[in-house]
Amino acid sequence: MTAPIYGRVALIGLGLIASSMAHAMKAAGLAGEIVGYAKSAESRAVALEIGFIDHAADTAAAAVVGADLVVLAVPVGAMEAIAAEIGPHLAPGATVTDVGSVKQAVITAVQPHIPEGVHFIPGHPIAGTEHSGPRSGFATLFRNRWWLLTPVPGTDPEATLRLRHLCEAMGAKVDEMDAPHHDLVLAVTSHTPHLIAYTMVGVADDLRRVTDSEVIQYSAAGFRDFTRIAASDPTMWRDVFLTNKDATLDILGRFTEELFALQRAIRLGDGAHLHAYFTRTRAIRRGIIEAGQDTAAPDFGRAPAASEGTTG
Amino acid sequence: MTAPIYGRVALIGLGLIASSMAHAMKAAGLAGEIVGYAKSAESRAVALEIGFIDHAADTAAAAVVGADLVVLAVPVGAMEAIAAEIGPHLAPGATVTDVGSVKQAVITAVQPHIPEGVHFIPGHPIAGTEHSGPRSGFATLFRNRWWLLTPVPGTDPEATLRLRHLCEAMGAKVDEMDAPHHDLVLAVTSHTPHLIAYTMVGVADDLRRVTDSEVIQYSAAGFRDFTRIAASDPTMWRDVFLTNKDATLDILGRFTEELFALQRAIRLGDGAHLHAYFTRTRAIRRGIIEAGQDTAAPDFGRAPAASEGTTG
Repeated sequence: MTAPIYGRVALIGLGLIASSMAHAMKAAGLAGEIVGYAKSAESRAVALEIGFIDHAADTAAAAVVGADLVVLAVPVGAMEAIAAEIGPHLAPGATVTDVGSVKQAVITAVQPHIPEGVHFIPGHPIAGTEHSGPRSGFATLFRNRWWLLTPVPGTDPEATLRLRHLCEAMGAKVDEMDAPHHDLVLAVTSHTPHLIAYTMVGVADDLRRVTDSEVIQYSAAGFRDFTRIAASDPTMWRDVFLTNKDATLDILGRFTEELFALQRAIRLGDGAHLHAYFTRTRAIRRGIIEAGQDTAAPDFGRAPAASEGTTG
Repeated sequence: MTAPIYGRVALIGLGLIASSMAHAMKAAGLAGEIVGYAKSAESRAVALEIGFIDHAADTAAAAVVGADLVVLAVPVGAMEAIAAEIGPHLAPGATVTDVGSVKQAVITAVQPHIPEGVHFIPGHPIAGTEHSGPRSGFATLFRNRWWLLTPVPGTDPEATLRLRHLCEAMGAKVDEMDAPHHDLVLAVTSHTPHLIAYTMVGVADDLRRVTDSEVIQYSAAGFRDFTRIAASDPTMWRDVFLTNKDATLDILGRFTEELFALQRAIRLGDGAHLHAYFTRTRAIRRGIIEAGQDTAAPDFGRAPAASEGTTG
């Protein structure tokens, strides 16, 4: 046990990220006490029952009173209303952070409501599973994962350092960058891939009416991985695309261009083009393994009995 | 140990599937002896060194002499030349099968070279990993996975039953369907998803020149899963797309249509459309879990420390 990094922590939203943070903070003694608020009374009850929060608050405003750290862990589209509600109740010297997948839109929504003397330090833990809700969290979610902070110019370095320590104590690696850059990088590595996975699963669903349940029964790994991605929280992802619109549309445009080039190669029977392309993408995978962001074990080291990777 | 199902088995090709079959057959005593051939002398040496084959042959023709079962485990584009070479050397009563990801093209390529009295029963184990080569195989690869057989009309039912028993004894579930139907189902569940993953990884690679290594460093799960898919064997996948051209182009056309509809919803800020779409795809994931083709554990039950699923 280390000494608590923050005395009182208020979690606004009690889903996968907030509940995992609470479990991680409790496991390592990083918070004096944890207060939680969620719009759903059922979520609040579940959080208390599981015990990852010490108290539940009936409103977001009540939750932040006296809090040293306030974590906004709600869908990006809900950030502005929450910020407006809690702004007048934030304690001087408190830090407010968020865990949204998009950073420019969150800054625009939240920053105007943060009073003088309160530190707003936007953040984004690049971690998650396809599950959501207060029962889905676990203490090791952030271990070895990146937690990106996008402090705005003029942010107090001491406050940033303290938040960084919390993230590191939960097992994450922390980096700082500016918000527009964050949004572009995530559009490439996360937002556009998710949209594509959603689309492919939707296409398969249309065809399911033709092929009955075979699409599901014989779902090879390519498609299974897509369905896992496409099972993510619909509200969270709706907000991601609406709020990171420009970067997502930019990357989607590039994607469509390249897809059409490959489609043309298939139509024309241009095997050399396909082989060269697939050889190039294989090398990128090696880069990810070397960067320590994944394991080289087949199927990420899944148990052999459940093992199935890429298949024809 | 059960009694051997086939006396002498010839493996043509010594990659992931063939080496996994050999390991599985040896583990359960399903083959009297296993002869292997691969174009690469190094692969043959590795197979002998690991010991999953009993003998190596210098040519495909030599490998099949006296074999009760011949398994064609080479890229689909190499099937015709192999079939032409081995045809005259096949033993009467022998069974020839293949493990190609496309079935109509394999039948067209192989069937004409199969002499009277030899049973050709095309097959496709829906199993694999992103690794390839003789060192990548393991005995449990096929456990609980589907092995689809697409026998042509008039095939001897006894021969089909014997092959089915072999597949089941290696742990697979077996189903039979006709080849065109197989190719459509796989275009949806595997071939098109792979092409899309290749494309997305290629787009990211272009952008890497802008964002340095960040695309790799902060690769969230959506993208990491894509890179795993896109790390698959380039020759195998080139041949899949060239030989399952029509079905792949059909599904790609539907995919592009749906992607454009979602892209338009993003551009117009139509959150209701996005939310409804993402809710529908989430249900498909549940169907796959219920069909027993995946686990509901986060990240397919990966170890928590390596755990990361879908992220923003």
